[in-house]
Amino acid sequence: LKELRQITVIGLGLLGGSISLAAMRSLPQVKVAGYSHRPSTRRKAKKLAPGLKIFNDLKASVVSADLVILATPICTFEAMFKEIADVLPHSCIVTDVGSTKVLPHKWAEKTLPETIFYVGSHPISGSEQRGVEFARDDLFVQSLCIVTKTNKTDKESLQTVATFWSTLGCDVKFMSPKQHDKILASVSHLPHIAAAAMINTENINDLKFAGKGFMDTSRIASGPANIWADIFFTNTANCVACIDKLITELNKFKKAIKSKDKKQIEKLLQQARNKRGAFIEYKLKRKELIT
Amino acid sequence: LKELRQITVIGLGLLGGSISLAAMRSLPQVKVAGYSHRPSTRRKAKKLAPGLKIFNDLKASVVSADLVILATPICTFEAMFKEIADVLPHSCIVTDVGSTKVLPHKWAEKTLPETIFYVGSHPISGSEQRGVEFARDDLFVQSLCIVTKTNKTDKESLQTVATFWSTLGCDVKFMSPKQHDKILASVSHLPHIAAAAMINTENINDLKFAGKGFMDTSRIASGPANIWADIFFTNTANCVACIDKLITELNKFKKAIKSKDKKQIEKLLQQARNKRGAFIEYKLKRKELIT
Repeated sequence: LKELRQITVIGLGLLGGSISLAAMRSLPQVKVAGYSHRPSTRRKAKKLAPGLKIFNDLKASVVSADLVILATPICTFEAMFKEIADVLPHSCIVTDVGSTKVLPHKWAEKTLPETIFYVGSHPISGSEQRGVEFARDDLFVQSLCIVTKTNKTDKESLQTVATFWSTLGCDVKFMSPKQHDKILASVSHLPHIAAAAMINTENINDLKFAGKGFMDTSRIASGPANIWADIFFTNTANCVACIDKLITELNKFKKAIKSKDKKQIEKLLQQARNKRGAFIEYKLKRKELIT
Repeated sequence: LKELRQITVIGLGLLGGSISLAAMRSLPQVKVAGYSHRPSTRRKAKKLAPGLKIFNDLKASVVSADLVILATPICTFEAMFKEIADVLPHSCIVTDVGSTKVLPHKWAEKTLPETIFYVGSHPISGSEQRGVEFARDDLFVQSLCIVTKTNKTDKESLQTVATFWSTLGCDVKFMSPKQHDKILASVSHLPHIAAAAMINTENINDLKFAGKGFMDTSRIASGPANIWADIFFTNTANCVACIDKLITELNKFKKAIKSKDKKQIEKLLQQARNKRGAFIEYKLKRKELIT
């Protein structure tokens, strides 16, 4: 494993702030630095995490880093990689927490020199909240982190990044970026699109009569629009395939309801109920339902 | 208002059990009777609510009732009405807690004699749980109850039913059954169909990587399949129209994502976010988010 003396977190939102806090708690011997281009975010971060070394200059924040973690919207990564490529120290490890992984791998390969080792990360934590003020040092405890690699990924760097997330409390799984983007389109991006599309059908006056079911079903659609736009924008083919699948399933309900086929309606509902039951049971067993 | 000396609750599930408990707490001078055809439910109800007079004979349970409340699946109502029609006392009020209202009104008109007064009710409470063991005497506190009426509805009975729900803690709204079924298809039935259809697209192995977002979005799909099949079965035209609207909105996302139009993706997401924000604000103001 590579020894980490300094970690630099780029972007101090909910995720970047939580990574900073969690690293300072779990790795007290490591210097943790953070960069944000927003003065108000830097002020808030300083208050929240007095031990964090905060930079207003991107290049300056990474010159002594052993591990750099990008926690900004995905579509900023390519420009960030380009900007820091020349100043990163030799054999520095770079990772990111973007919710898609194919393009970040491609951008890293294209823009970072061969002396820099890129590994992809996706900690599956967070919420519909945004901003450093919601950061928590236990955000990653008992949560899942997918670490992505290709056949070009440096093995020591891969293990260093995986160990970093384990230290923060994550259960780490390895995948190829391609597999990651396909699975996440299905279990994360589609639910988000479905929730947003569902709300977009609603008349605002009717929502006065909506109950807790609507509230829960629609919760994720309160997430930041720019972050999610970047996610869908960088996973277009998989998202489109998932939307098509959802439309197919909706048409099964439509057909059953239109033809008043109660047996078939109940069968479709029972299928969903059983699958969700299996999901809940799996997560409960692994105690993964906390964040 | 009609004086209530005895209330009979038909069906002792989560809703029927909660109505019984809430009525005993809020109306201590009123005799509360309950009917269930299941011996195990009657045993559990007896333990949970020792003050409840429990019947295993449907007709016997209603002969002295001033208000009868049906809390069984919607598709049982017509047969229930027929069975009790002859034994209900003169000017007895009959209501139900079904999640659709057009057909219950129609069935009541067709099967109950003119000396019996039917009013529709839909308390918007409950959860994905089922069974009398989840019954709570505060289930209706600060929740919404829609009371439905046509131009044939008896005014005194309407007010009596509305006052009953208010006494249990509900905020009561009046609607026509037609308006009710249209609005509820949109804010309740569609979210349920969307959640179930979304789960039905999933590969069970991929769900290992699903997070809290998926869990919340899919929660309502764990509701009892038979109850929900009855709901969709008795509101087919509105449900089909809502599915069509959802497919239209999904296709907007599909088009924007396929053509990599990030501005349009963000616009669709922001639209959903704003609408949900307005919904949450409205509910918070009215302190309606508790159950």
